[in-house]
Amino acid sequence: MLVLSSPSGAGKSTLSRLLVDEEKQSGQPFHLSVSVTTREKRPSEVEGVHYHFIPRDRFEAMRDRGDLLEWAEVHGNFYGTPRDPVEEALKGGRDVLFDIDWQGTLQLYEQMREDVVSVFILPPSIAELKARLERRAEDSDDVITRRLAGAKAEMEHWSEYDYVVVNTAVEQAFKGVKAILDAERLKRVRRPGLADFVRQLQSDL
Amino acid sequence: MLVLSSPSGAGKSTLSRLLVDEEKQSGQPFHLSVSVTTREKRPSEVEGVHYHFIPRDRFEAMRDRGDLLEWAEVHGNFYGTPRDPVEEALKGGRDVLFDIDWQGTLQLYEQMREDVVSVFILPPSIAELKARLERRAEDSDDVITRRLAGAKAEMEHWSEYDYVVVNTAVEQAFKGVKAILDAERLKRVRRPGLADFVRQLQSDL
Repeated sequence: MLVLSSPSGAGKSTLSRLLVDEEKQSGQPFHLSVSVTTREKRPSEVEGVHYHFIPRDRFEAMRDRGDLLEWAEVHGNFYGTPRDPVEEALKGGRDVLFDIDWQGTLQLYEQMREDVVSVFILPPSIAELKARLERRAEDSDDVITRRLAGAKAEMEHWSEYDYVVVNTAVEQAFKGVKAILDAERLKRVRRPGLADFVRQLQSDL
Repeated sequence: MLVLSSPSGAGKSTLSRLLVDEEKQSGQPFHLSVSVTTREKRPSEVEGVHYHFIPRDRFEAMRDRGDLLEWAEVHGNFYGTPRDPVEEALKGGRDVLFDIDWQGTLQLYEQMREDVVSVFILPPSIAELKARLERRAEDSDDVITRRLAGAKAEMEHWSEYDYVVVNTAVEQAFKGVKAILDAERLKRVRRPGLADFVRQLQSDL
């Protein structure tokens, strides 16, 4: 399970999408976990792709039934990860990508720390963070102000992540995230099947 | 400190050299630790590049003075890593690459486990391992037989390494090792300077 987190506007959603596209071509398709949220859909967003947009009472029912792997309240809206699709993907041997905040990440740690690889994305500067939020031009000034205020607190949590990528240029940041993914897949502890492979090599000698 | 180990012929020396060349171009030059050894020089080997070839009594003197960071006896020959060049490179902020065996790796772990990233290279098959040793055509049949016998025991130690790369094709294996290096450089724990960077971002908000 690969987790990408960042303050709003630092680029985690763009990087997630690039990663899913790349892995599609590589033949090791990722399962991208699509969160449920009670916040309003932005014009560019697509139901079921960026989020499942659901009403508050349905969110609360899912949460109370234990149907969410993690959930958090951010800027007055709820966000959560439906449990079933993730568990199905993992059972099928697929890696799962999460685009969630630090609160969700800590909840994933609690449930399965060893299987989680977490990456925190930082903006190169606050000027750039503001520019990206304004360029998006889909949120009201009000919302942008709230997001910037939130960013300060969110950034505090960089120190709870395994890796940190500074998103100065998206191609470079993407290469970094891809290297993390490729390297983690080469970790001995994630490859129990190698024991048999080595035993076979040894018996051929 | 990046350690590459493998049974003879599995390709660690080729991969080390590719990595040093690549990093030279990237402007983050590696220090490649050149071992001292008491074994005979192969025709293609260059003193000071592949090894420092030294007589046995000089090796023993270095070892006894504590001038070696690690040392091991393999197939009746001594191999060791001179301590000074490594410590100088690390002090200068450079990463150091080691092409050493499992005995040396365990000694490095003892001295500074947290700073060591270790990669074990496996051959894709024993047939390929034999073919590579024979293609090298520099060792006598006798030496090849001894190396193959040694490979069986050496391979046992794959399970003491952080990462495992199966060297089916050298370009692919190199990409894996490079990803490991790039990812490890993005690890939060290796980047204490980020604390100041994040504080600066937060104070700009």
